[in-house]
Amino acid sequence: MNQGALRGTVRLAVDCMGGDHGPSVTLPACQAFLARHPHAELILVGRPDALLPAADWARCRRVEAPEVVEMHDAIEVALRRKKRSSMRMAIDLVKPDDEGVSAADACVSAGNTGALMAVSRYVLKTLEGIDRPAIATVMPNQRDGYTTVLDLGANVDCTAEHLLQFAVMGSALVSAVEGKEHPSVGLLNIGEEAIKGSDTIKRAAELLRAAAASGHLNFHGNVEGNDIFKGTADIVVCDGFVGNVALKTAEGLVAMLSDFIKQEFKRNLLTKIAALAAMPVLNRFKARVDHRRYNGAALLGLRGLVFKSHGSADSFAFEQALNRAYDAARNGLLDTVHDRIRDTLQAMPAHPLTGDNDNPKMMASRLTA
Amino acid sequence: MNQGALRGTVRLAVDCMGGDHGPSVTLPACQAFLARHPHAELILVGRPDALLPAADWARCRRVEAPEVVEMHDAIEVALRRKKRSSMRMAIDLVKPDDEGVSAADACVSAGNTGALMAVSRYVLKTLEGIDRPAIATVMPNQRDGYTTVLDLGANVDCTAEHLLQFAVMGSALVSAVEGKEHPSVGLLNIGEEAIKGSDTIKRAAELLRAAAASGHLNFHGNVEGNDIFKGTADIVVCDGFVGNVALKTAEGLVAMLSDFIKQEFKRNLLTKIAALAAMPVLNRFKARVDHRRYNGAALLGLRGLVFKSHGSADSFAFEQALNRAYDAARNGLLDTVHDRIRDTLQAMPAHPLTGDNDNPKMMASRLTA
Repeated sequence: MNQGALRGTVRLAVDCMGGDHGPSVTLPACQAFLARHPHAELILVGRPDALLPAADWARCRRVEAPEVVEMHDAIEVALRRKKRSSMRMAIDLVKPDDEGVSAADACVSAGNTGALMAVSRYVLKTLEGIDRPAIATVMPNQRDGYTTVLDLGANVDCTAEHLLQFAVMGSALVSAVEGKEHPSVGLLNIGEEAIKGSDTIKRAAELLRAAAASGHLNFHGNVEGNDIFKGTADIVVCDGFVGNVALKTAEGLVAMLSDFIKQEFKRNLLTKIAALAAMPVLNRFKARVDHRRYNGAALLGLRGLVFKSHGSADSFAFEQALNRAYDAARNGLLDTVHDRIRDTLQAMPAHPLTGDNDNPKMMASRLTA
Repeated sequence: MNQGALRGTVRLAVDCMGGDHGPSVTLPACQAFLARHPHAELILVGRPDALLPAADWARCRRVEAPEVVEMHDAIEVALRRKKRSSMRMAIDLVKPDDEGVSAADACVSAGNTGALMAVSRYVLKTLEGIDRPAIATVMPNQRDGYTTVLDLGANVDCTAEHLLQFAVMGSALVSAVEGKEHPSVGLLNIGEEAIKGSDTIKRAAELLRAAAASGHLNFHGNVEGNDIFKGTADIVVCDGFVGNVALKTAEGLVAMLSDFIKQEFKRNLLTKIAALAAMPVLNRFKARVDHRRYNGAALLGLRGLVFKSHGSADSFAFEQALNRAYDAARNGLLDTVHDRIRDTLQAMPAHPLTGDNDNPKMMASRLTA
């Protein structure tokens, strides 16, 4: 597999109906994306009428999907009752045929995360050696870089083996997209002397140290919540419950702070004048921490690249998700994840890969025997 | 028990040696606190030489402690080898004698959290019906109020019964200190359709609904990380691992944002002038979200009131911790927690309280049979 080699043309499948705003946001984003990426092609999936505006776009094909997975639809509905939804058909386009060729290199959707993960897993299956796919996103850090955090909600009650797999997948993501050969991995834990984390965390640390010892992972050690924004490690690994809480807590805090600062600048005439003076600086600051710039979470561990945009994304934000999918596909992320997982598992003990992806116990034995 | 009745004189025991700065921070804070609280008395605990500055202070007694629990000391050291430490002796002062009378109404320490929790639990024991003490703190919210969050790190791997106990203790804290008769409780969960939380969370929700049905708790339902700062519920309950990560993540984010905004205002002459213009507004904003104002976490569920100050607290922050301990003692928090726990447990099923505090299964049967 041509790990790391840049692909020429990259083709993305886009679920144009997903998200809170659907085509009114996704189509302008696609148009802007095509203008900025001369080597990119798009396959727009959605209702015929909704896709009409893109009728004569260059490097752009339309696929008609009669159904739409609504944001409130239960996973079962998306999985069993809407087999011709724009989400499902976009994912189908990245599924490789018997020759391993797929119509699209990656797909992007702003639809219901639970449905997107369930349908992706059902259609694409997990990579050999992966028990559960994970959701990874980037957050800005004080080093003016990004910290990649996973899992963000796909898995609760993770085992130590799952956390190891997240670490390997996260490393592959950062290596492929950011070009870092040996990105550092931090295990999210709590500093509290009293308990220093659960047994699962302690065990995960052992596995990560073993993987590091065999040279297949750059394990930094335990990190705490604040290290995500300090940039202590390139990747922070945690179970989906903790990751989701950390992400949502950060979102809530930012919302409160920007609300407070607006209130203070609107307090009276003097503060409004101060606001005018400070506006250029505040705008630079705002742009720097603009969460829209970080939109586009990767669903890792699947036999195909799927990227999830925030449901409330505007055109600018959705375009960033398209950019992430483009970069990942162009840098051969799928091969990188596959190769890293294979190499890590093979290196740990002398066990061959059995391809048994649904038995954590097996994984555990393979990883620790 | 005179629940809610305001006490006249309140006496606080202060571990003056704890924290990163010790007496250089704690003594000025104590002096300012005494000046602001004419009905308060302090018992300062620490090395004789360190307490000399307070020799002639009014409403102030000094207790000499030959040893100090260092921030890096292991719990075992604090527990078994330093029985005459300022931390241990300050906690001893809130331990009731056979007549139920204690030398101090509450104690405050900025020392090592793990050690403080372990020693407090060993000296004071847990309240009847409480399996594990919890650490509770307040965070500012968008409604210009506080959200009380627990647990913050005392317990990982909590059972549903523990989360119920946290909810009852948190309600007692808010009732006693903020005077809200029926504060609302949110159960921290993740919004993700895919999994909607672990089995423990689902079970905790059942217990909380049962407690609400019996009128002993105001259960709002599930909340997410961002709801902490939205102020969706007065109290947010979670296990110590998740709570600690949420708190540290928030701290790290604030550190990064203030770092970024400083950088932007220092960029060049123009931005520096803008900074001058905006300074009064930015200072108001800063004061509003100043984490020092929220310093002082309550150790709940013990047979005595213990408050923990951040180890890095300055005098202003440490004084806030003294204020919280003062308010809690003055409002009879200990009685409130005791009464609420008793009432809730009695109301749930027809089981009498066995006082078996170390068997979650028993609790479960009592709560759900």
